[in-house]
Amino acid sequence: MCQPPAVGLAITLSVLAEAPDASAALVVPSSPVGSHADLEAVRAFARDCDVVTFDHEHVPADVLAALEADGVALHPTPAALVFAQDKLAMRRRLTEIDVTCPRWAQVTDAASLKAFGDELGWPVVVKTPRGGYDGKGVRVIASADEAEDWLEVVARHAAAGEGPLAEGLLAEERVDFVRELAVVIARSPSGQATAWPVVETVQTDGICTEVLAPAPGLDEDFAAQATEAALRIAGDLGVTGVMAVELFEVRDPRTGDSAYVVNELAMRPHNSGHWSIDGAVTSQFEQHLRAVLDLPLGDPSPREPWTVMGNVLGGDYPELYPAYRHLLARDPGLKMHLYGKGVRPGRKIGHVNVSGDDLGDLRARAQHACDYLRGVITE
Amino acid sequence: MCQPPAVGLAITLSVLAEAPDASAALVVPSSPVGSHADLEAVRAFARDCDVVTFDHEHVPADVLAALEADGVALHPTPAALVFAQDKLAMRRRLTEIDVTCPRWAQVTDAASLKAFGDELGWPVVVKTPRGGYDGKGVRVIASADEAEDWLEVVARHAAAGEGPLAEGLLAEERVDFVRELAVVIARSPSGQATAWPVVETVQTDGICTEVLAPAPGLDEDFAAQATEAALRIAGDLGVTGVMAVELFEVRDPRTGDSAYVVNELAMRPHNSGHWSIDGAVTSQFEQHLRAVLDLPLGDPSPREPWTVMGNVLGGDYPELYPAYRHLLARDPGLKMHLYGKGVRPGRKIGHVNVSGDDLGDLRARAQHACDYLRGVITE
Repeated sequence: MCQPPAVGLAITLSVLAEAPDASAALVVPSSPVGSHADLEAVRAFARDCDVVTFDHEHVPADVLAALEADGVALHPTPAALVFAQDKLAMRRRLTEIDVTCPRWAQVTDAASLKAFGDELGWPVVVKTPRGGYDGKGVRVIASADEAEDWLEVVARHAAAGEGPLAEGLLAEERVDFVRELAVVIARSPSGQATAWPVVETVQTDGICTEVLAPAPGLDEDFAAQATEAALRIAGDLGVTGVMAVELFEVRDPRTGDSAYVVNELAMRPHNSGHWSIDGAVTSQFEQHLRAVLDLPLGDPSPREPWTVMGNVLGGDYPELYPAYRHLLARDPGLKMHLYGKGVRPGRKIGHVNVSGDDLGDLRARAQHACDYLRGVITE
Repeated sequence: MCQPPAVGLAITLSVLAEAPDASAALVVPSSPVGSHADLEAVRAFARDCDVVTFDHEHVPADVLAALEADGVALHPTPAALVFAQDKLAMRRRLTEIDVTCPRWAQVTDAASLKAFGDELGWPVVVKTPRGGYDGKGVRVIASADEAEDWLEVVARHAAAGEGPLAEGLLAEERVDFVRELAVVIARSPSGQATAWPVVETVQTDGICTEVLAPAPGLDEDFAAQATEAALRIAGDLGVTGVMAVELFEVRDPRTGDSAYVVNELAMRPHNSGHWSIDGAVTSQFEQHLRAVLDLPLGDPSPREPWTVMGNVLGGDYPELYPAYRHLLARDPGLKMHLYGKGVRPGRKIGHVNVSGDDLGDLRARAQHACDYLRGVITE
């Protein structure tokens, strides 16, 4: 999705593709195939790049360190990226800089997890610090027993002194939230930063299905506070490129005022910013390119009062074309973004954007398109 | 410029590129190198395409005929495309279907040209029927002598029975116009058609330098008439894909009403439609893809009250980067579109779009960016 803005900005992309038919390889001429975990492949790839950036957080620390030692310009830098890769590191750092997080603890065994849950009250949330996404690596548990399998892996990794769970699990308070929000910002190596409006992210079964931009009915002061927090995180952590800060909006029971609790960080263009492709003067993908190249950032203003993004999840029927054709005919204002991935049930295979004045109408149109492409409705 | 919308629509492009470093080849993975005039190269290229379309009008008739005989789906079809390739054929056909054109004649020698000029009054316009663009192949002449060199070529081609000028020249009345307009439309093989708002095209030395979308102060009835004429041309000529109809707006001296006179036709996404990339719900490039694939067409509505497109012409200084960087910083809402072409004085190397409410401000911003990139201003 960086390729469309790269065309106009005359930025030549190169992608280290996991397979010849990876989505990005289908649209970027220079797409050598290799694994992000294979140091020599990454090194050979990076040799011809002015700047290297990432579309996921899973590049191993030793690969990042080797590239940095080679003098490759990495954005975000490994020193910042670790806070998106490792949720324990993130919680520690955000707590240090006084950003509100759920109450949390690092737990390494059943006893420490039980102590945490007993103190806060069950259920609590446990997360694997590394490798989770879309609800994977996250569990809401009513007792320490329900994390027994993970704790066994922790013990094994700790004994071996290595492995993604060697440090233990992240246990967190289950936040009683009003809704989920995201602040997507961009920051350049020079320190210029911009923020898109705070958006609401609607989750279904742990997967984001809908984003409303901007978040409806958001208090202005609260929006400013949440945006300030995201920009402060970016500045304090030295983030470069696009960063999404996923938040819980919570209500103070006494004052009725909103407050935020930070849930997750992602240091890359993020699903909660896809609305900006059609809904903002500068999309998150254009802004990410500008930021990592230390070019001046573009205007993040919305172009319409509302934009609704709907995630297209795969259904049981593998052939999208008839539904795609039908939807283009049914809704000429629908902006379709398919990823060129094979259809598998529940897999994110694309998204749609619709922009305009009437939020209810936009939500209905986005929902219809996603349901139709998934095959759960037929008219 | 079709690649950005192709990404989201999951349409796989392939480009027959004139050179490995052609603009399109830089951004489209499948870009075999070959000449559009080389039948075997075009044939080999077309073999793997579902639909073949064109980004210029210069593919020779025998190549088109051979592809058609091979059963290749061509859009626009050769039968329609000839009216964009051959200005004499275009004038004949538009006159048949009662579309207002300048008074015109086919002239094959000095005597017929002199007779035409003497009847209408000098100066007149002469055009080579094929191969002209951006003011090339067009001359305003005060006497037949000033076309002597072209008429010699006509005589030579006519004697040989072949060559682009074998049929003679197109002589036309010089139209006393108020301004130049363009109607850009799209039509699919199924006959669905859409039109963008009529735009004003501002020419400097025969080259379009600025497009105002929509054309300011345009009478609504007149706009509807001009749009109807463009849609009628598309229907009658069987045009598929995007077509630009370049018009003169003329004033009836008695009534003061506006009327149109058709100047040129282009059957492809056209410079007068570049504003739509950022200024319309569906850009001309997305619409062209939808049209030639016979997919339902998108909404051509403008997204802002005004969009101004400025063409970036090359200046004397070959290095664009400092100016590009400066402009991104100066105007965060400027949408830059560079073509990855080498800078040569006067060459179209890109364009900029700006959208908003204040036409005067937008024109100033677009003009500033173009002048700065060309190097004619330095602040």
